[in-house]
Amino acid sequence: MQQGKFITLEGSEGAGKSTNLAYIQELLQAQGLEVVTTREPGGTEIGEKIRALLLDPENTAMHQDTELLLMFAARAQHIFEKIQPALQRGAWVISDRFTDASYAYQGAARGMGFARIEPIENWVQQGFAPDLTLVFDLPIAIGMQRVKSRGAVVDRFEQEQKTFFENVRNAYLERAEAAPQRYAVVDAAQSLVVVQSQIRQQLASKLGLIC
Amino acid sequence: MQQGKFITLEGSEGAGKSTNLAYIQELLQAQGLEVVTTREPGGTEIGEKIRALLLDPENTAMHQDTELLLMFAARAQHIFEKIQPALQRGAWVISDRFTDASYAYQGAARGMGFARIEPIENWVQQGFAPDLTLVFDLPIAIGMQRVKSRGAVVDRFEQEQKTFFENVRNAYLERAEAAPQRYAVVDAAQSLVVVQSQIRQQLASKLGLIC
Ligand SMILES: Nc1ncnc2c1ncn2[C@@H]1O[C@H](COP(=O)(O)OP(=O)(O)OP(=O)(O)O)[C@@H](O)[C@H]1O
Ligand SMILES: Nc1ncnc2c1ncn2[C@@H]1O[C@H](COP(=O)(O)OP(=O)(O)OP(=O)(O)O)[C@@H](O)[C@H]1O
Ligand SMILES: [Mg+2]
Ligand SMILES: [Mg+2]
Repeated sequence: MQQGKFITLEGSEGAGKSTNLAYIQELLQAQGLEVVTTREPGGTEIGEKIRALLLDPENTAMHQDTELLLMFAARAQHIFEKIQPALQRGAWVISDRFTDASYAYQGAARGMGFARIEPIENWVQQGFAPDLTLVFDLPIAIGMQRVKSRGAVVDRFEQEQKTFFENVRNAYLERAEAAPQRYAVVDAAQSLVVVQSQIRQQLASKLGLIC
Repeated sequence: MQQGKFITLEGSEGAGKSTNLAYIQELLQAQGLEVVTTREPGGTEIGEKIRALLLDPENTAMHQDTELLLMFAARAQHIFEKIQPALQRGAWVISDRFTDASYAYQGAARGMGFARIEPIENWVQQGFAPDLTLVFDLPIAIGMQRVKSRGAVVDRFEQEQKTFFENVRNAYLERAEAAPQRYAVVDAAQSLVVVQSQIRQQLASKLGLIC
């Protein structure tokens, strides 16, 4: 039995991760592949409990080291309980965010720095990494508009936070540039049809999958 | 303002940690010192929520890496929110268990190995460590009897788990032997009066405190 492939979707809010996760799932299933879709933080029962701790607005006093360790605690459980067993039985796994999000949000936007995150990634993952990471890239203002029209709360996009999201975006681009064999940057400002065409091209060139 | 000192109490179940924490607190207060007592896992509001996750019997599928990261997530919060601010204002802090317990329980008894724990300790603590760790050492059978007579559940001491507790005990002794300036082994099989006399001697010789 051949191992499945592990695909992660990254990008700032409103970039199209969830929309295209469903699209990729359909593409892969049409190839006769078993597909497991998941998300971070969370993805397991224990992980969802940790997610609740992370998102609880009561926990305002949470130190950034605590937050990072909780993220990776959930991620360790996610990898060992769900992702690796699925890959081993030949399923393909698509995750809405994964480790790159820790680098972009905690590392860049919150200012911990990539160097503070690397040792924890290495300790948990010991080399385990996605086969392909699609970075949905678009100008912050467009993501903002899309989330608005989706009807979500948009406080987080207020002017003083613009730098935060610029830092997220730039961190993803920086990581993609540093390892072009594993990452593909998708121009997510294009229409959905064009975005989907880019995705099919990347699945073909990076994973040899002609859909 | 002089920094306070940080004292941790370690040892297997029934060794006398909680009993003597109260005693040490009284000794220090009688010296006019401000004393903060605390415990692990837990010690903060966020830490207590993490403790609940760790102790929840529903979470049987928890991977040992997840468990270790949760322990250290709680510990990071404990250090930054409670222990270091107290020490900085001059208070002395006594904690019922601390990092040595991760080495003894996860490292030795659960078989992760010390080498797997060190990088996480270093990442979180960056050299921060207790000024004195009292290891309450006693034969497993005596601890078992004491816990029994305290009226607690004793399932965990069943025969097949004896090795587990021997490993905990030996790990503490090994760590104490490797850093004799920071650790003091207390013979906890003695009567309480003799144990307390040993504690006063160690406070004097290790921290220069004549009680
Ligand atoms: N290429 C596109 N062109 C126009 N609208 C799009 C495009 N891709 C997604 N959208 C719309 O933008 C909104 C945000 O998309 P989606 O929820 O997939 O983003 P997301 O990256 O998952 O966001 P979040 O980080 O908030 O979960 C949705 O309403 C979606 O229908
Ligand atoms: N030196 C001693 N001689 C006799 N009994 C003792 C001595 N020290 C403690 N005890 C008794 O043994 C029992 C266990 O002590 P204690 O609760 O302080 O241990 P502990 O190390 O905190 O245990 P746990 O790990 O379960 O919290 C208590 O009933 C206590 O009164
Ligand atoms: Mg989404
Ligand atoms: Mg106790």
